[in-house]
Amino acid sequence: MNKTANQMLIIFGASGDLTARKLIPAIYNLYKGKHLPENFVVLGASRSSITDGEFRKKVVHESEFLKSSLGKEDQDFVSTFADKLFYEDLGDDYDTDYDRLSKRIGDLNNKYHTENNYIFYLSTPPSLYEAIAKNLSDKGLNSEANGWKRILIEKPFGYSLQTAQDLNKGLQKYFKEKQIYRIDHYLGKETVQNLLVTRFANSIFEPLWNRNYIHHVEITNAETVGVEKRGGYYDKSGALRDMFQSHLLQIVSLIVMEPPINSNAEEIRNEKVKALKSLRIMTDEKTLFDHTIKGQYVASEIDGEKVKGYREEEGVDANSKTETFAAVKFFVDNWRWSDVPFYVRTAKRMPTKVTEVVIHFKTPHHQVFKEKDIANKDNKLIIRIQPDEGILIKFGVKVPGQGFKVERANLDFYYSSLVDTNIMQAYERLLLDAMQGDATLYARADEVEAAWAFVDPILNYWENGEDVKTYGYSAGAWGPKNSDGLIEGEYTWRNPGPHLVDDSGFCVIC
Amino acid sequence: MNKTANQMLIIFGASGDLTARKLIPAIYNLYKGKHLPENFVVLGASRSSITDGEFRKKVVHESEFLKSSLGKEDQDFVSTFADKLFYEDLGDDYDTDYDRLSKRIGDLNNKYHTENNYIFYLSTPPSLYEAIAKNLSDKGLNSEANGWKRILIEKPFGYSLQTAQDLNKGLQKYFKEKQIYRIDHYLGKETVQNLLVTRFANSIFEPLWNRNYIHHVEITNAETVGVEKRGGYYDKSGALRDMFQSHLLQIVSLIVMEPPINSNAEEIRNEKVKALKSLRIMTDEKTLFDHTIKGQYVASEIDGEKVKGYREEEGVDANSKTETFAAVKFFVDNWRWSDVPFYVRTAKRMPTKVTEVVIHFKTPHHQVFKEKDIANKDNKLIIRIQPDEGILIKFGVKVPGQGFKVERANLDFYYSSLVDTNIMQAYERLLLDAMQGDATLYARADEVEAAWAFVDPILNYWENGEDVKTYGYSAGAWGPKNSDGLIEGEYTWRNPGPHLVDDSGFCVIC
Repeated sequence: MNKTANQMLIIFGASGDLTARKLIPAIYNLYKGKHLPENFVVLGASRSSITDGEFRKKVVHESEFLKSSLGKEDQDFVSTFADKLFYEDLGDDYDTDYDRLSKRIGDLNNKYHTENNYIFYLSTPPSLYEAIAKNLSDKGLNSEANGWKRILIEKPFGYSLQTAQDLNKGLQKYFKEKQIYRIDHYLGKETVQNLLVTRFANSIFEPLWNRNYIHHVEITNAETVGVEKRGGYYDKSGALRDMFQSHLLQIVSLIVMEPPINSNAEEIRNEKVKALKSLRIMTDEKTLFDHTIKGQYVASEIDGEKVKGYREEEGVDANSKTETFAAVKFFVDNWRWSDVPFYVRTAKRMPTKVTEVVIHFKTPHHQVFKEKDIANKDNKLIIRIQPDEGILIKFGVKVPGQGFKVERANLDFYYSSLVDTNIMQAYERLLLDAMQGDATLYARADEVEAAWAFVDPILNYWENGEDVKTYGYSAGAWGPKNSDGLIEGEYTWRNPGPHLVDDSGFCVIC
Repeated sequence: MNKTANQMLIIFGASGDLTARKLIPAIYNLYKGKHLPENFVVLGASRSSITDGEFRKKVVHESEFLKSSLGKEDQDFVSTFADKLFYEDLGDDYDTDYDRLSKRIGDLNNKYHTENNYIFYLSTPPSLYEAIAKNLSDKGLNSEANGWKRILIEKPFGYSLQTAQDLNKGLQKYFKEKQIYRIDHYLGKETVQNLLVTRFANSIFEPLWNRNYIHHVEITNAETVGVEKRGGYYDKSGALRDMFQSHLLQIVSLIVMEPPINSNAEEIRNEKVKALKSLRIMTDEKTLFDHTIKGQYVASEIDGEKVKGYREEEGVDANSKTETFAAVKFFVDNWRWSDVPFYVRTAKRMPTKVTEVVIHFKTPHHQVFKEKDIANKDNKLIIRIQPDEGILIKFGVKVPGQGFKVERANLDFYYSSLVDTNIMQAYERLLLDAMQGDATLYARADEVEAAWAFVDPILNYWENGEDVKTYGYSAGAWGPKNSDGLIEGEYTWRNPGPHLVDDSGFCVIC
């Protein structure tokens, strides 16, 4: 276990939903797992005028989380945790009272010996980031002269390349890049991190991991839910911004990247940036028309129940053209991946909730055995991010009996087979990393900007292109019909079920 | 299903144990599986003076096989099968009465329309092969002018290179090589045949299948039994002749061979011969001393029960130096395998009954993550021939939690997972292949001789070398202690348990 220095965590926007629902439970679990340092303080700061006691009551004693999973906990244990929590009212506009806030931080630091190590967690709208950073800077709270200072922000990291650059510049005026932690909870997932280990701690995958052996790469992120209560936010964002630019391009970068020289944060992030920069940016409308598909779910029935169309959802414009389905084909312009197409799609209201990567290997160059239907019989490496996390290799085995008939079978591995007492949740894991100063799983400014640089022309085209269409698809279907044709030749999307090994496995008597 | 021509199967040595115990049951199963042609006759020929009826009674109606597994069969069905069986007395020395035999074959052929297609199955001591072949030839029964003629023999195919060559020459005087079928029941195993499919119907293994990625290859064939009732035979043979020269070098040839241009019998066998010829023959005593280990089991206790030593076994010379354990290290002198050591061992009275191939891949050239104990953490491809047949890849996964700790996990596939109504037994399968003229899984003369050419110097050294030792090992142990050191460096034998996935799997809390 790495050492965690004594420190204070200052949460801006502490009265918001996220604090009670995710942040405090994560900190509580770290406390329970003995990951917190001896001297540790949480200071909530927000626009509500509440006391320390009221704050503790809201986020600990009366929180949904405690009610559901902590009811059985020892109350002294819970109270000792709650005693580490404090609150400070920031007033209406986050722009006053930094004197008071600064003094409070100083007092708590002195009293609880947090050694001037502060994480500022900005759980506020991004529009406030720069102002908060400036105010902290004005009070000298960005200075690492004594103790370190880190600022932690959540996505969205901008709305476009320009806004992302503005955001980064705004923060970087007051904090150094190495002080800024951009959290993408996808990178906290064990299965995502294991992409690196699979590739670089094994000798059998990396030799195959290039254009000589890989035919194409397919990534699917499917949700079964619609926009739910986030219609107002989502309608201004869409699938490309909400999922593709962030989570999915992070996964792409881990698949595409070259081996880093070691596993240090900067080395890994250098390679990821290089990977993202190597994605071929699509600029002409012809390519954008051919390689991108924009869709929106329409009303339908799922399992006999009527389901609203996107435009009928609460908070969504009745004439909205925002995509709930995005599929993008692209190429990677580097030595390793030249001419290998990548197909990435993300959508809401699909038949299954699943995120997975499928590496399609080329069929054997020479057919020693006479296989029919060879196109559906390529070797595949399937990396399941969620659910039913694991790794699957689809490979050819001999059908028992005379001659050499070949059928597909599965080599599989499930994370659930690992003996482990406690796998940390993504959020917890990332928070602890930040507390320890490990930025490996945090997005660097240049990464975020490289991802936007790739996404921007697609967004512009989808918003302003002359021939752009927003295709409808029935809620509960695998997206618009014409997205099936995006993958050329004899291939199509895998359309996976909820289980890593699907029912279409080896069956010689079917 | 391939077409099987009408034919007659003439069994020499039909009154022997093998006919009732293996051959007739195999033919019965082929009959039951509707693999036999419409017109099919079995003619038993031997030195016993019995009638057709007595023969049928012995090998069908009163056979152990029928009693145990066929008791419930429809008696009409069994009788219809038995009616296809006939018997001819060959007299005392197999050397008279070929007039009568020849006439009988002719008569049966005419009556049952077997179209002059004959398989001569020689279930006799090898010393009789040439005489029988000559007699058949004298009667013109080797001629394929009308209908084909095949002669099928069982191992041992000689006792040394010289005797194998003599045997082949003896047969080839009267039959063409393409008429001669040498049965090695190991090649009838699905798992052995699947070695070819694994390598050549997949694109992900073959690129790794060479000196660039493979560190060494390990093959273990272990039996738990001793010599049982075969002491008299075994003492003149030994592990090297009994298992290594035949079954194990067949497996080696399938691992070593280059991709054939197609799956035709001659193409596959051409590549196997080339593989066997590329094994580096050891001639100097120093190499033979360093690279071979000869062992013999001594009395011990297994699970509390006393077990005899080899020299106490029935039929074994009390001063016998015959090996019951043989381990050989060797190299393959070709482009693909240069400098990759192969370690092959076979023995009786080992802790587990198991046959498996372990491909040890090199550790990653560069350590991105800091792994300890890297030598035990190489990627392995384990191909289990028997029991618990399947394929296992041992690879590195990330230990859940912070940082990048790597542990081994398993990707596994079991043959038992295949949905199949009826997997043919090795013996049945091979017999049907011969009936259909498919010699792919039969050993060709040059294959047999190439295998002997490699084994001969080891045998000579073990029998006549000055510094040769026959090391004792306790019955129930993994061979002589010093065999552990045969594999150099930080590696040793896998010593597998009865299950493909062993208990030493991934365990993060151990």
